[in-house]
Parts: sequence; structure tokens; C-alpha cells
Amino acid sequence: MRIAVMAPANRVDEHALDAVPAIAAGYGVELVVDPQSWAEGGGHNWAGPDQLRADTFLKYANDPSYDAIWFARGGYGSNRILPLVMPHLEEPARQKTYCGYSDMGFMLGALYAARIGHVAHGPMPVDINRRNGGEACVRRSLGWIAKRDLAGVEPGVIGTGRPAAAFNLSILDALIGTPWLPDLTDHDLLIEEVDELLYRVDRMMFHVAAATQLGHVACFRLGNVALPANPAGQADFGLTPDQIALHWSREMKVRFLGRARIGHDVDNHVVPFGVILSRQ
Amino acid sequence: MRIAVMAPANRVDEHALDAVPAIAAGYGVELVVDPQSWAEGGGHNWAGPDQLRADTFLKYANDPSYDAIWFARGGYGSNRILPLVMPHLEEPARQKTYCGYSDMGFMLGALYAARIGHVAHGPMPVDINRRNGGEACVRRSLGWIAKRDLAGVEPGVIGTGRPAAAFNLSILDALIGTPWLPDLTDHDLLIEEVDELLYRVDRMMFHVAAATQLGHVACFRLGNVALPANPAGQADFGLTPDQIALHWSREMKVRFLGRARIGHDVDNHVVPFGVILSRQ
Repeated sequence: MRIAVMAPANRVDEHALDAVPAIAAGYGVELVVDPQSWAEGGGHNWAGPDQLRADTFLKYANDPSYDAIWFARGGYGSNRILPLVMPHLEEPARQKTYCGYSDMGFMLGALYAARIGHVAHGPMPVDINRRNGGEACVRRSLGWIAKRDLAGVEPGVIGTGRPAAAFNLSILDALIGTPWLPDLTDHDLLIEEVDELLYRVDRMMFHVAAATQLGHVACFRLGNVALPANPAGQADFGLTPDQIALHWSREMKVRFLGRARIGHDVDNHVVPFGVILSRQ
Repeated sequence: MRIAVMAPANRVDEHALDAVPAIAAGYGVELVVDPQSWAEGGGHNWAGPDQLRADTFLKYANDPSYDAIWFARGGYGSNRILPLVMPHLEEPARQKTYCGYSDMGFMLGALYAARIGHVAHGPMPVDINRRNGGEACVRRSLGWIAKRDLAGVEPGVIGTGRPAAAFNLSILDALIGTPWLPDLTDHDLLIEEVDELLYRVDRMMFHVAAATQLGHVACFRLGNVALPANPAGQADFGLTPDQIALHWSREMKVRFLGRARIGHDVDNHVVPFGVILSRQ
């Protein structure tokens, strides 16, 4: 099995992923890390200009000799390549698995909306560098991508009979009202966030709750909501992340089913979009 | 003429508006500042809990003895009262002028979407406290609300024959895909922003450009885009606010017509929503 690694948003340092191919080899995977992953140019620490990032994605997506694209890292900017890539995907793109999280939610959302491939919200190669569990992180995604191993999948989405989807809240927020927001009717919707002030979390949950396109999710679950290191203006917000989620779940008349093991941390688990049977 | 002042989002300090009624009297206006404007409770420096803010808005909106509601200040939270007020507006609400900006864009957007009243994006009573021009700020709005005086109106929206609308970008962003986003077809869309990192400005402009509901605005114009005082991570973004606006205008195939005199500053001018004739 061959998996391509490339970066639709920010670049990685040139040797940041050096340890990953050997781990992947243990899963029978030839991991091809494209040097575009550490390209420069285009501003904002992007892994090259929009067109380079788009072309590199299309090169692998449309190549039938690759089984998956595993996004190198997040950051900001995969939204900018959606108009450049989505109209140009070909048949081989349909057979692939795509995995990432954070800003990669733009890619996952657009692919799932177009029913192209098998998409999963999960750890990325760059997570190898997380302390105290980086290798376990990347193994969760590798297990799912290469073997459909459920060991690294968030337990609450297995065997429910309902489809699931997971997003960083800021990314889901930015997909509302666009052609790239998938139909999430009857889905368990898992949300995580990092480094956002609580009033923004509240405003984004308002947005999700008020969006007519999202009116029929089955339930919400909340992953890690990691607050900014220097939370100026946080102390007086008056509502915790769970209280915010509960408030807007009530407003939406959907259930809030508590916490899930996803987020910008070493406990980030895989959430394959769609229905996950208890035996794959 | 009677104008009510109340606060749908954050509270003002108890004496923050003391100088405003005397200025308003010069326009023949009895300015009634409701004490709810400095109420407390509900968290986040809100001017009272959601229900109090909603009830106070409805008290004046539905009272035929008031000609306008001038929102005391912005902050965060008027979105939370939309479900509590919009279904309960009565006939007297249709005759009124509503004026404010920033977070008040939620109110302006919802009212304009429902074609209720005359809404204007403009300075608020709390702007009296801005240095070097606070009084001129509030006079622009008072002139428009009380006399339909064009002196304080952003010059570029007068006599174009096209309708205009103005929003803080974060607020417009949070209205996309909700029932409270007005139809802005053929409108000149003026946008301002404050204290947002440039990658966020870019992501929000992506969102506006990608939103199918906003596909038919006539043009964009950009007000003040005031960057955070401590712009960590700004330096390398690589695009200025004007370049960002130009990029997404092209993507949207609408014109970018440059700058407008709106924003979180003393040069903030009034933008009445709709068509502004050169003589009112």
C-alpha cells in the first residue's frame, strides 16, 4: 500500500517527518513524503503558493498507484485551494482514503460533500513531534488508513448505526453556507477547538445552531476545547465549553452527548466520516 | 422625537453616556437612556441576562411613542437575543430607525432581512468617549436618525442608485447560512474589522466569497481594518487587507472599489442600509 504525504496549508520543517516512514513500514505502507511539504512561498508559512499546493494534491489524488493521502499538517490555507482542486478530481480520487484534522477540515468537508473517497478526521504525520504520545498519535491514523483497525478510532462513533463527522469548530464555521459543507443530516457531529476565546466559541456554536443547513444533525459531542495560553478576557465569560455546547444544543433541539477523544493533543482519535460498524 | 438607548450585548459604565442627551437635545431629540444599558449579570460583561436584554429591546421596539432605537454599544452577544426578539416584533417596530455597528450587525442584519424598520450602520452613544472626535461621531448618527442629514453618511454610498449595507466582517461571517442574513443581491457591501489576525481576515473573506447566499453583491468596499495591538504571527502573512479583499473579489467576480470611511474609530460614518438618494 502506498500513502502520499503532502501539505495543503502550512509547511513542515524539512526533517519534521523523518521518523514516520519507518513506523508506516510496519503497517506494510510505503510512505511517500512529497518535498512540497516543506516548500516555501506565498506568505503565511504556506507550503508553497496556492497553485503548487493544489497541483501537488491533484497529482496524488488522481494517481491510481496511491491508496491514500495523509495530510502532513494543518495551519491555515487549505480553503484557498478548494476552487483549484475540487473541479479537477478524477476517478482514482474516489478510491482513496484522506486523513487529517484542524485546517484540513476544509479538505475533508469538501471531499465528503462531493462523496469522493473515504475521509477521516485524525492525527497527521506532524503529530509525531508531540511529546508523550506522538508515536501513538500517528499509529492511530496509520492503523485506520492501512488496516481499517478500530483501535485508534474514537470509541463513541463505533457501532452506533449513525454516521459521524468531526471538525474543528472554526473550520466548520467557515464552511457554513458554502458548497463545501457536507449534508450532515442525522450525523453525530463531533467538534474540537484550540486557542479560541470562549466568546468566540459561543459565537461559533450560535452559528452552527442557527445554520439552516445544519438543522438536522443527530447530536453534538465535544472534543478537547483547549483555551488560549494567555486567556485575556476569558475569566468573566460565565459559561464553560460544556455549558456553551449544552445551551446551543437545546436551542437546536438536538442532544448533547458529552465528550469525545478528539482535539489538538496526544489523545486525538480517528473519526472516520460516515457509519462505522463495530467490525470493519 | 424620542430615541431609546439600550444595550443588546455588553453593558456601558453607568455614567459613560451622560454627555449624550444634551447633544441630542440640540437635534430636537428626547434621548431616553434605559438603565438596562448598565445592568449586570449573565456573564461576559453582558448588560444583563439574555432575557432582560431581549425584553428591553422589545419594550421600545413595540412602543409607538419612540421613533428610533440607538444601540448603546457593541461587544458580544446580540446574536443570543435574536431568537427571543425577532418573532415578537409588532407593527410599531416597522416605523423605527435602528442604528449601531460592530456586534450590532446581528440586529441590523436580522431587521433588514425581515424588512423591519430603517437600519443604519453607524456610531453609537458609547463613541462619545472616543478621544479626538467622539462628539463628531455621535453627531453623525444623530443627524441621520433625527434629520436624515447626509453630512455624516459615508460619501460613497450616496446617490449611486445601488443599495448599500455595512458590516463588521466577523459578524457578517457569523450570519452566513442563517435566517438572519439579509438578501444582499446588487448591494454595495462595506466591511470593516478590528483586532483580527490577517489569516482570520483572509478566512472570513473566503467565507463571504464562497457563501452561495452572497454570490450576487454588486461590489466590496473596505473600511478600516485595525490590526491587533500585538500582532503575533502577522508579519509573515504576506497579504495586506487590500490584497486580501482584491483576491476574494476576483474569486467572486465582483468589483473591489477601495476604501470607505467606516470602522472602529472616530472616522466611522453612517451607512444606511438600502438606496441612499443624494437628497433625502
